[in-house]
Amino acid sequence: MSDAKNPTAAMLVIGDEILSGRTRDGNTHYLAGQLTEAGIDLEEVRVVSDKHDAIVGAVKALSAAYDYVFTSGGIGPTHDDITADCIAAAFDDHIDIRDDARALLQAHYDKSGQELNAARLRMARIPDRASLIDNPVSTAPGFKLENVHVMAGVPSVFQAMVASVLPTLTGGAPLLSRSLKVVRGEGDIAGPLADFAQGHADLSVGSYPFQKDGVYGANIVVRGTNAARLDDAMKTLAAIFA
Amino acid sequence: MSDAKNPTAAMLVIGDEILSGRTRDGNTHYLAGQLTEAGIDLEEVRVVSDKHDAIVGAVKALSAAYDYVFTSGGIGPTHDDITADCIAAAFDDHIDIRDDARALLQAHYDKSGQELNAARLRMARIPDRASLIDNPVSTAPGFKLENVHVMAGVPSVFQAMVASVLPTLTGGAPLLSRSLKVVRGEGDIAGPLADFAQGHADLSVGSYPFQKDGVYGANIVVRGTNAARLDDAMKTLAAIFA
Repeated sequence: MSDAKNPTAAMLVIGDEILSGRTRDGNTHYLAGQLTEAGIDLEEVRVVSDKHDAIVGAVKALSAAYDYVFTSGGIGPTHDDITADCIAAAFDDHIDIRDDARALLQAHYDKSGQELNAARLRMARIPDRASLIDNPVSTAPGFKLENVHVMAGVPSVFQAMVASVLPTLTGGAPLLSRSLKVVRGEGDIAGPLADFAQGHADLSVGSYPFQKDGVYGANIVVRGTNAARLDDAMKTLAAIFA
Repeated sequence: MSDAKNPTAAMLVIGDEILSGRTRDGNTHYLAGQLTEAGIDLEEVRVVSDKHDAIVGAVKALSAAYDYVFTSGGIGPTHDDITADCIAAAFDDHIDIRDDARALLQAHYDKSGQELNAARLRMARIPDRASLIDNPVSTAPGFKLENVHVMAGVPSVFQAMVASVLPTLTGGAPLLSRSLKVVRGEGDIAGPLADFAQGHADLSVGSYPFQKDGVYGANIVVRGTNAARLDDAMKTLAAIFA
């Protein structure tokens, strides 16, 4: 349904804590909104556990299938942070503590009076061919290797890294959306809506049902890149369900 | 890190509205908690758009890789509800309006005085070899084909269907978890925590950093199936970070 001309993207969330139900992932929803505004079509999301093979497999599959890949999680200093090594493995790159990343951390911890110990130095492990992603919140950088952008799981840091990355991406026409709330069962809406969708094949037409306190209805969402065309379509739609 | 003896599971969320950032998926988080309690390890989540090939491809891959698969979304009466047909295609099954599903809908709409029109009848399209999943909220059934459980996207209906399905699954030992909040940077925690994890290889040990109002810390989460073993481990952990 998305505009075929726009670049495509996938998100990979890395972390046992999401899969166990302990933590609810919010980074996907944040990234989805940012990419839509930038005219980049998020087409797939995967969540995998902190396991080497699961991460490497997902990175390879998504990197091959989409223009951009974004990951969150697993780049901290603890033993379960294995994302950087997995990304290097996925792209057959060498990885070790890199001088540019170490210098960033050294300056940061010198200022705060903390020791740049072995654990913190793990955060300077960056694949040879990667470029760093700026982290204005807590310094430890993300990185980009091939078309994969590796970012932190902590939401405030993730969002800051997304802000660092977005200007470097080639976007398309932002996908605009309009919605109409119809307080009527989807079964009554479906027939005329299918006709409408067929008559507006250049637009994406979705129906998102809700039921609350025994009331059934749906939000009809129409998406496209041309504002005038969308406005016209919404007038037609409003007339159909008046 | 999860207990290798437990059955494995994957979740497939189907819907453009999640990928566009319009709606935030909550079904994954709900299912994750329920499966953890049931001793079933959720190992992967995917979100794909309302596209035939994307859905069929994901269903095939997940069905082959995990013991159980759960889907949400795309089984309503509107033109963008294509999940049932995609599941049939993934398993080479025939699909049409089935008498048992039609009878459920007929009784429901007779009672409410609404017409069982062509759109609503779409919800009786069930693959031949599938068994129905009870929907006590709004009647239109989900279904199970092979190891794939096809459920609604509306959260209240999804949750009711999960409740219908759970007693039919073979679970393992519920994964128990204990957590310790340490208000110290992960860089200070990481060394002793790695030693602790190495000394408790039968347990899963994760560190989930947070930073709030300039304070850095982490929740250390220890998971396992033996409550006494977990309690002992937490005493050791508390002593390490006292």
